[in-house]
Amino acid sequence: MSTDPLVVFTPSGKRGRFPKGTPVLTAARQLGVDLDSVCGGRGICSKCQITPGYGEFSKHGVTVRADALSEWNSVEERYDQKRGLKPGRRLGCQAQVMGDVVIDVPPESQVHKQVVRKAASARVIEMDPATRLFLVKVDEPDMHEPTGDLERLERALKKEWGIEEIRADISLLSKLQQVLRKGKFEVTVALHKSHTDSIPRVIEVWPGLHEAGIYGLAIDLGSTTVAAHLTDLVTGEVKASSGIMNPQIRFGEDLMSRVSYAMMNPGGDVEMTKAVRDAIDTLAGEIAGEAGIDPKLILETVFVCNPVMHHLLLGIDPVELGQAPFALATSDSISLAAKDLDLGTINARARTYVLPCIAGHVGADAAAVALSEEPGKSEDLALIVDVGTNAEILLGDKNRVLACSSPTGPAFEGAQISSGQRAAPGAIEAIRIDPETKEPRFRVIGCEKWSDEEGFWDEIATTGITGICGSGIIEAVAELRMAGLMDESGLIGSAEATGTQRMVPEGRTHSYLIHDATDEGGPRITVTQGDIRAIQLAKSALYAGARLLMDERGVDKVDRVVLAGAFGAHISAKHAMVLGMIPDVPLDKVTSAGNAAGTGARIALCNVAARAEIERVVRQITKVETAIEPRFQEHFVAANAIPHKTDPFPELAKIVPLPSPTFNTGGRDGGDGEGGRRRRRRA
Amino acid sequence: MSTDPLVVFTPSGKRGRFPKGTPVLTAARQLGVDLDSVCGGRGICSKCQITPGYGEFSKHGVTVRADALSEWNSVEERYDQKRGLKPGRRLGCQAQVMGDVVIDVPPESQVHKQVVRKAASARVIEMDPATRLFLVKVDEPDMHEPTGDLERLERALKKEWGIEEIRADISLLSKLQQVLRKGKFEVTVALHKSHTDSIPRVIEVWPGLHEAGIYGLAIDLGSTTVAAHLTDLVTGEVKASSGIMNPQIRFGEDLMSRVSYAMMNPGGDVEMTKAVRDAIDTLAGEIAGEAGIDPKLILETVFVCNPVMHHLLLGIDPVELGQAPFALATSDSISLAAKDLDLGTINARARTYVLPCIAGHVGADAAAVALSEEPGKSEDLALIVDVGTNAEILLGDKNRVLACSSPTGPAFEGAQISSGQRAAPGAIEAIRIDPETKEPRFRVIGCEKWSDEEGFWDEIATTGITGICGSGIIEAVAELRMAGLMDESGLIGSAEATGTQRMVPEGRTHSYLIHDATDEGGPRITVTQGDIRAIQLAKSALYAGARLLMDERGVDKVDRVVLAGAFGAHISAKHAMVLGMIPDVPLDKVTSAGNAAGTGARIALCNVAARAEIERVVRQITKVETAIEPRFQEHFVAANAIPHKTDPFPELAKIVPLPSPTFNTGGRDGGDGEGGRRRRRRA
Repeated sequence: MSTDPLVVFTPSGKRGRFPKGTPVLTAARQLGVDLDSVCGGRGICSKCQITPGYGEFSKHGVTVRADALSEWNSVEERYDQKRGLKPGRRLGCQAQVMGDVVIDVPPESQVHKQVVRKAASARVIEMDPATRLFLVKVDEPDMHEPTGDLERLERALKKEWGIEEIRADISLLSKLQQVLRKGKFEVTVALHKSHTDSIPRVIEVWPGLHEAGIYGLAIDLGSTTVAAHLTDLVTGEVKASSGIMNPQIRFGEDLMSRVSYAMMNPGGDVEMTKAVRDAIDTLAGEIAGEAGIDPKLILETVFVCNPVMHHLLLGIDPVELGQAPFALATSDSISLAAKDLDLGTINARARTYVLPCIAGHVGADAAAVALSEEPGKSEDLALIVDVGTNAEILLGDKNRVLACSSPTGPAFEGAQISSGQRAAPGAIEAIRIDPETKEPRFRVIGCEKWSDEEGFWDEIATTGITGICGSGIIEAVAELRMAGLMDESGLIGSAEATGTQRMVPEGRTHSYLIHDATDEGGPRITVTQGDIRAIQLAKSALYAGARLLMDERGVDKVDRVVLAGAFGAHISAKHAMVLGMIPDVPLDKVTSAGNAAGTGARIALCNVAARAEIERVVRQITKVETAIEPRFQEHFVAANAIPHKTDPFPELAKIVPLPSPTFNTGGRDGGDGEGGRRRRRRA
Repeated sequence: MSTDPLVVFTPSGKRGRFPKGTPVLTAARQLGVDLDSVCGGRGICSKCQITPGYGEFSKHGVTVRADALSEWNSVEERYDQKRGLKPGRRLGCQAQVMGDVVIDVPPESQVHKQVVRKAASARVIEMDPATRLFLVKVDEPDMHEPTGDLERLERALKKEWGIEEIRADISLLSKLQQVLRKGKFEVTVALHKSHTDSIPRVIEVWPGLHEAGIYGLAIDLGSTTVAAHLTDLVTGEVKASSGIMNPQIRFGEDLMSRVSYAMMNPGGDVEMTKAVRDAIDTLAGEIAGEAGIDPKLILETVFVCNPVMHHLLLGIDPVELGQAPFALATSDSISLAAKDLDLGTINARARTYVLPCIAGHVGADAAAVALSEEPGKSEDLALIVDVGTNAEILLGDKNRVLACSSPTGPAFEGAQISSGQRAAPGAIEAIRIDPETKEPRFRVIGCEKWSDEEGFWDEIATTGITGICGSGIIEAVAELRMAGLMDESGLIGSAEATGTQRMVPEGRTHSYLIHDATDEGGPRITVTQGDIRAIQLAKSALYAGARLLMDERGVDKVDRVVLAGAFGAHISAKHAMVLGMIPDVPLDKVTSAGNAAGTGARIALCNVAARAEIERVVRQITKVETAIEPRFQEHFVAANAIPHKTDPFPELAKIVPLPSPTFNTGGRDGGDGEGGRRRRRRA
């Protein structure tokens, strides 16, 4: 009596009986075990490495004898000598099942590897890339049965990999014959299988086994910066990340000024399209250089961006996005050839995927945030805010997700703030104001210490203190409020009213002096009444957007808040709530998602099913258009105040509002205090 | 009791009962009657014109009353005033069924029109183009339900035309928004539905109803000439035909010299690709200009060509085609964007279809001949010969079709013939030699008369007699044989042996003098021994190819012969058989198919189902490779003779072969005959 040996795979637990002599790879395939192979079982790609276990496995009811697998063979020997196999490892295509056996598939041998994201969130990206490698042996041409090389390649892919049909650009045809002959008709094919096209496309072909890897670029195309992550399409590993300024800035700082530029200047859209495409192409070359990778091995790109960037990237005049009803030329995702975007540095047949837009003001970047943060799978009601020049706001749980965007302006990024600057070494990023003395202490980027700690001034000697960045100004405004230097309406107090010389006259209003280095030729950093107004406008817009979604959802509180965007990672939750940027939730319910849009781009790059998923999700999102919703204006006006309820400082009421412009002007002209003197010097 | 009115459509005979008030177009659609409509029943496109019949129709069992259709309405009135309706015509979308009625669908209202081919064969092309027009009303954008313009266009196509999904290039997106707004959201869409892609592609979009038509180019890309037919994609009408020389000629006259050029010169293939693409682009512009059509209305191109032209058109180095095993880079048909072939003059999103190749030496041109001549549907065994620098030969009937190509060289086209020239005014195209007097009479292109008819010399005064073209040289050689001036081996007789001074010494051999205008400074036209050898080689190759297929098929005769190619139309069947170019069949079984390859291209352009059909047919054709088949050489050698059995002139035996080179040389130097004198004068 003979019973076929039992094969148990771990970690999947899949099991089955196979005739003696069955290669482990064959058994794995028949059981649907996730065991990789590029060479199709020829013992050359080494992707199918497995680790057999020996001894007793009571959990699986199996005792594995030492001869459960066939002996180490010459193919494995040669491979081990040439490249080295880890101890205990076998090649799944060579080792044959001879008796009951437990076989572990190590993570790196799985096709659908789990890649831990770098970001704070512990979620993983499952590898399921659109582009994969296949080694095939192609029949040589035969005069008696004349078929093209491409058709024989197609036949080989069908025979060896079950791939029925392929597409190939003519640019591939021009090299195919040479590559086939160079590889003695054994070639590695990079096939791109889109979720929207049933027929995979040949992206590249190399002679023999291609071992230099294949890569993709996840690109977060922002109004201000373009960030790219060069990602290994097999392992999911980020090989390099790099960013450049968006060269369109010279056509306008914010989105609407770029739309205006396109409206006012014939061909202006074409000019901006060329500028951004050139920049992306340059970035692609730089990032490949940084990682030491041939840019022609970049076979895919994924883009996330707001609607205006989306249109300008694709060469569509964004004029319709500048006026109601804000009609997108297309809202669905787009799959196209990277060369159609003039990306000439990367592979000539590389593919590009652009995530869908949610609405005329809510772009593919918001879709990427939704893909990364998955509000639609949340048990509790999450408010996700991606803060930028426009804030993208998502509110939802597994029942329903809503989205809008809100025009916060660039104040949160330190722009249009008197001492504002981008987050860079030397920028004040955190600040505390002592409610008693009204004196500030602060921290600058590039130094871990607070300004009142020993050694601070030595450590910042090289960078100096250059300005105040977005997170710093948010804290400053909130601290002014908590220190009783500013009233609920945002009006800043005078030195007389507040009893501190930090309050210096500035035109008809006052400013709070944080730091003055003018004696050493350095800057004088203040928070002006104008700065506060700018922050108030920004936070009101953000809050009004969130409120609008809450109204739409019929709730007046949320369970948790996620701050997305590079900036979101640096905001103090407490200060954001004091300021009224976000609705009140317990402090531990505010988390940062880091660059969630960029993470969404990486997910879409590494996992083709995620593309279908986000397209489905986007269709189900309820879109709310802030620009035409009267309640948005109401919320906006109502949100202007710095909320009282979160104010732990009752002495605020003591501040005497500045009575009249005359008083201020007089004070400024006649003042001989520190502030006045310095201001004159500056002039 | 009320019975719904009976509607009978002619010529289809389809019938059904419909409620009173049903528009005729609706009734037609429900019955599957082929009634065209671009505007979807809005009364603006006028494609659905029908002719109701009144009175008694005993055949259909219907008596049609005068009020069987609703009254002439204001839409029809307006249309008639603006553009005029033929008497008796109604618009099918406006006229409603009110009683039993017989409705005739005139040919021009059918989608699948039958277009009579110009060529001799009476077959028709059924219109079923890949690209068709659809007028749609697109929903205007709505902020409360934000979707892209493209997505709303897609929705409209689905709602009005049942088209589920569309593809659109980004170049279309860049104009879509403007066109939609210009057309007040009513646009005409040109959709291309390929037989290899289930999702149609938007090629163009125009505001409102597009009335300037859409066109396609059927292009026969030959080694020597490029011919294009500008075809109306709605009616199938050929609006203009034009041809230019293939500029690759400067890289080599025949295919193999071009392959050699590519092998010898790095980048030579790229150079030739650029040359031919530029020429085609220029030709496209010229032909559109000739027809008075905007070249941007050319939305499709179809190419037929031999394998080397095929590869050079597609930008593939043809080097593999120059050596066994003659591997094609791809043999299947190719569907691609015309811009990938650098055809910038026509529509930027125009599509291109290239017919499949049959084998390394049997190209898409042969496939086109198979599509046009349909040997696979023939009841009797047909031999189809497309004569050119390479001859494509098809042999088959409904049981089986075989194909090969044979390297005939350019002799049949008048090249490499001492007095040879292309078929153009002034060329001798037909010749008869009196078997008694051995005197020639001939006809030249551009004149209907024979040279011995009155007025001939006056009529040709302007063109003169410039040379001898392919059909002329074939007749000349056959006539020389029939006049007893040449033996079975092809050896030409001397003046002494033949008794005519027309035989003039020429080196070691003799020539036959047809016409001498050297006294007037004109040419001296002879048939030399070298010319005869060239024709013998060509005809042997052609015959050997045909024999090889006959062997393969196991037959020693065929039922009929079809001479294809522009040249084939001008060959005398009798002379071709005397010469032994083609196997013997009764004279009335030899027909000309005209430019069958070009016709095949037109069929593929006008009928998308024909593309699938020829792809299927090509896969079933038995390919025979002449280059490696030993029997080809045997047949070639055996076919060298000018067959005796068809020689009606027994006096041939009298010719005394020229005994020795010495004799000839002496004869030439010492000769004082007409020939000798004239030859010296030329030197």
